[in-house]
Amino acid sequence: MSPEVQVVIDSLREEVTRLHAELVRYNLVIWTGGNVSARVPGADLFVIKPSGVSYDDLAPDNMVLCDLDGNVIPGTPGSERSPSSDTAAHAYVYRHMQDVGGVVHTHSTYAVAWAARGEEIPCVITGMADEFGGPIPIGPFAIIGDDSIGRGIVDTLTGHRSRAVLMQNHGPFTIGVSAKDAVKAAVMCEDVARSVHIAREAGPLIPIPQDRIDSLFNRYQNVYGQGGDDRR
Amino acid sequence: MSPEVQVVIDSLREEVTRLHAELVRYNLVIWTGGNVSARVPGADLFVIKPSGVSYDDLAPDNMVLCDLDGNVIPGTPGSERSPSSDTAAHAYVYRHMQDVGGVVHTHSTYAVAWAARGEEIPCVITGMADEFGGPIPIGPFAIIGDDSIGRGIVDTLTGHRSRAVLMQNHGPFTIGVSAKDAVKAAVMCEDVARSVHIAREAGPLIPIPQDRIDSLFNRYQNVYGQGGDDRR
Amino acid sequence: MSPEVQVVIDSLREEVTRLHAELVRYNLVIWTGGNVSARVPGADLFVIKPSGVSYDDLAPDNMVLCDLDGNVIPGTPGSERSPSSDTAAHAYVYRHMQDVGGVVHTHSTYAVAWAARGEEIPCVITGMADEFGGPIPIGPFAIIGDDSIGRGIVDTLTGHRSRAVLMQNHGPFTIGVSAKDAVKAAVMCEDVARSVHIAREAGPLIPIPQDRIDSLFNRYQNVYGQGGDDRR
Amino acid sequence: MSPEVQVVIDSLREEVTRLHAELVRYNLVIWTGGNVSARVPGADLFVIKPSGVSYDDLAPDNMVLCDLDGNVIPGTPGSERSPSSDTAAHAYVYRHMQDVGGVVHTHSTYAVAWAARGEEIPCVITGMADEFGGPIPIGPFAIIGDDSIGRGIVDTLTGHRSRAVLMQNHGPFTIGVSAKDAVKAAVMCEDVARSVHIAREAGPLIPIPQDRIDSLFNRYQNVYGQGGDDRR
Repeated sequence: MSPEVQVVIDSLREEVTRLHAELVRYNLVIWTGGNVSARVPGADLFVIKPSGVSYDDLAPDNMVLCDLDGNVIPGTPGSERSPSSDTAAHAYVYRHMQDVGGVVHTHSTYAVAWAARGEEIPCVITGMADEFGGPIPIGPFAIIGDDSIGRGIVDTLTGHRSRAVLMQNHGPFTIGVSAKDAVKAAVMCEDVARSVHIAREAGPLIPIPQDRIDSLFNRYQNVYGQGGDDRR
Repeated sequence: MSPEVQVVIDSLREEVTRLHAELVRYNLVIWTGGNVSARVPGADLFVIKPSGVSYDDLAPDNMVLCDLDGNVIPGTPGSERSPSSDTAAHAYVYRHMQDVGGVVHTHSTYAVAWAARGEEIPCVITGMADEFGGPIPIGPFAIIGDDSIGRGIVDTLTGHRSRAVLMQNHGPFTIGVSAKDAVKAAVMCEDVARSVHIAREAGPLIPIPQDRIDSLFNRYQNVYGQGGDDRR
Repeated sequence: MSPEVQVVIDSLREEVTRLHAELVRYNLVIWTGGNVSARVPGADLFVIKPSGVSYDDLAPDNMVLCDLDGNVIPGTPGSERSPSSDTAAHAYVYRHMQDVGGVVHTHSTYAVAWAARGEEIPCVITGMADEFGGPIPIGPFAIIGDDSIGRGIVDTLTGHRSRAVLMQNHGPFTIGVSAKDAVKAAVMCEDVARSVHIAREAGPLIPIPQDRIDSLFNRYQNVYGQGGDDRR
Repeated sequence: MSPEVQVVIDSLREEVTRLHAELVRYNLVIWTGGNVSARVPGADLFVIKPSGVSYDDLAPDNMVLCDLDGNVIPGTPGSERSPSSDTAAHAYVYRHMQDVGGVVHTHSTYAVAWAARGEEIPCVITGMADEFGGPIPIGPFAIIGDDSIGRGIVDTLTGHRSRAVLMQNHGPFTIGVSAKDAVKAAVMCEDVARSVHIAREAGPLIPIPQDRIDSLFNRYQNVYGQGGDDRR
C-alpha cells in the first residue's frame, strides 16, 4: 500500500470507531450487534467492525481491513480477527454501487418492526421527505451464507432515492456517500420508523402530495448545511 | 452596535448554546435537527443556531446573529456560517409577535405523530392545563421556501393560550417570553403529546371541565415558581 | 428547635435532595415538575422541594422546612423561597396519616395515562403484588387551591394496601414509611403502569388469584431485604 | 476451599458485580430488582447478588456464596447478608442443569408484558432465530416459597433451544454457559420482546420458515464471533 493510502486507512479506522459510538448514543444497537464500514477511496478496500466484539472494546487497531470480496488483508492491524458476520453484504454493496462510501447495519427496534411485517414506511412527515425523498422500501427475505443479502440491498436501493432498506424479517441496511452519511441515514431511519409507527397507531395519516415531497427532497440535497458537502 | 447591546448579545449566545443542550437532554432532537433562537431585547436582532452543525460542536461563537428579515449580520461571530434552515420562520414570528422573546423547533417523536394526523392534542391532564391552558393546536401544511411556515405559526398562535403549535406533517414550533420559556414549552409539548397518546391507546379519556382548565391555567401563569418571572 | 431535631433536619435535607435525583434517574420528572418531602420524626415539621427550581440546582440548603399546615418556618435555610406548589397536599397527608414518613408526586408518563382514563391498574404481575398488594387505585378529580387533593389522597389510601394513588386527570402521589420508601413506590408505580399498559395492548391479561396476591404481598412486606427495615 | 477454587470465586465475584451493571445499562432493572448468579466451576457452589441492595452499592465483597441447595457458606465475604430472594430458583437450576454456568432474572418491561398474557414470543426476526432458535416459551405460574419456580424453569428449558423462559405473570429467567452468556440472553430477550410487540401492534407478522430458522440458529451457534467460545 502506498503511504498516501495508508494515511487514509488510518484515518478511516478512527472515523469508523467513532461512528460506532454514534450507534450506541442513538440506541440503535445492543451487545455486539450492528456494524459500520467505510470504503477506502482510491483503493478496492474497506474498513469494518470485527465480529462479536463489545462496543466498549472497539478501537482503531481492531477494525478489520478487507478487499471488495470481503477477504481480510493479512498482516494489517485487526487481521487476526474475523470481520463482522455481515462483511459479505457490505462487500457486495461496494462492488456494485460505485458511489457508496459507507454502509451501516443495525437491528434498531422500530425499523425491525416494519421489516417483520414486510411493510415499507410511508412518507408522511416532512423530515422524512427531506432525508429519504419518499418511502423507505422493503428488501427481500435473505439469510447469511451467500450473496443474497448484498444483492437484495443493491437491487432495492439502485435508482431509489432512499439510502435505507428494511430487509424483510431482518432489519435496516443504510448506505451513504461516506460512513458518516450512512450512519446519519441509520439514525434518521429509526427516527422516522418510530414516529410514523406511533402516528399510525392513533388514526389515519395525512399523505404529503408527491410534488411537495419532491420539493423538500431537492432542496435538502442541494441547500442544507454549511455549503460544500457536510455529509462527507 | 452599542456596548450595552453587545453585552446582551454575548449573554444570549451563551444562553442559546446552553438551551440547545436541553433539547438533547430531553431527547427532543437527533443529529443536527432542531433549533432555538432568542430575540435581542431592544434591537431588531435575534441569535439562532447555525445550519447542519452537530450538537456537540455548538458554541457561543458559532451561533448566528440575524436581523428580523433573517439576514446574517456580517462581521459578527458565526457570520461565516449559514443560519438554521428554519431562520425565515423564526424571523417571521419575531416580526409579527412583539411579545415573543424565543422560538424553538424540533421533530420530537410524539408531537410529530399528532402532526402527521393533523390532530390537535386534547387537554385531559392538569399539567397540560397549567402549561398550555387548553389543547395544543395544529397549524397548516407549509414547506420551506417562503413565509408560509412563519405565517402558519403566527396565525395559529395569535390569541391562543398555547405556546406550542404542531405544523401539519412537520412538527412542533414553540414560542415564549424568552428562549428558555420556549424550550420549556417544547419539553412540555412532547411530554403531553406522549402522555395523551399513550392514555388514549387504552380507552376513552375523561375530559376536564372548561372552568377547571381556566382555573388551572390562571393560577399557573400567576402564582407558580419563585415570584418574579422565572421564565425569563 | 433542639439540637437533636436540628441534626435530623439537616440529615433529611440531604436525603430529600438525593432522592430528587432518583426521580431524574428513573425519568419520572421533567423540567421543575415533581416533588419529594420527608416528615421530621418527633416534630410537626417536614422538608420539601422549593417551587419552580431546576433539578440541577437543588441542594440541602434550598429545601424548605414547613409545619404540618404547610407554612414555611421563618429564618431557616430555604425559607426565602416558596415551597412546592403541592405543599398543601403533602401537609394534609402528614396531618392525617401518622405512619407516613414521606410523600412523592410526579407526572410520570404511564401513571398519568391511567389517571387520564380514571382507570385503576389491575394487579396482573407478581412484582406488583409484592409491592402494592393489589391494584393501584384512582383518586378523585381535584385541583390546587384547597384541601381537596390531600383529602383525595388520604381518603383513597387509608386502609388500602397500595402506597400509590393515581389522582384522576392528574398523576400519581405515593406515600411511604420514609421518603425513600415513597420514592421507591413512585418508581415501581410507573414501572407497573408501563408494563401492564403494554401487556394489555396486545391481548387479554391473565389474572392472579387473590390468595396468591395475598401470599406475595405478605412475604414481601415481612421477609424481603436485609432484615431490619431497608425501606427507612 | 482449595486456593485454586478461591481464585475462581474471587474472579466470579468481580464478574458478577460487573454483569449487574450491564442489567442497569440496558434498562432491564430498577431499584434493587433483578439478579445474576454464576456457578463456580469444579465446586458445588455459586455466587449471587445479595437481597435488597442498591445497584450502586454492589461490590465483589457483598456478593453471596451459596451451595447448590441455596445455603449461604458461612464465614465468606457477603455471608452476613441474605442472598437474593430468588436464590432457591437459581440453586434448583444449577442442581438440575449441569451445563448451565449462569442464571439471570429480571422484570424487564416487554418480557413481563408477554408473561402477563402467558403468550410465547413468536420467532419472526432473524436476530431472534440466531439467538434463541425459535420462540421464547412461557413457563408455569409459580410463586416464591418452594421449588416451583426453579422446577418451572428447568421443565420448560430442558431440551429447548431457547435460553430464556417467561414465567407466567412474573418475568424472564435466562440461562447460559456462563453468567455473561445468561446476561446476553436477558438483554436479547427484552430486545426481541419489544421488537415483536411493536411489530404486531401494526398488523400481521410474516413468519420465517422453520428450515431458515434452523439454518440461522446453527450458523450462529457455530460460526459467530472470534472463534473459541466468546460467550464464556
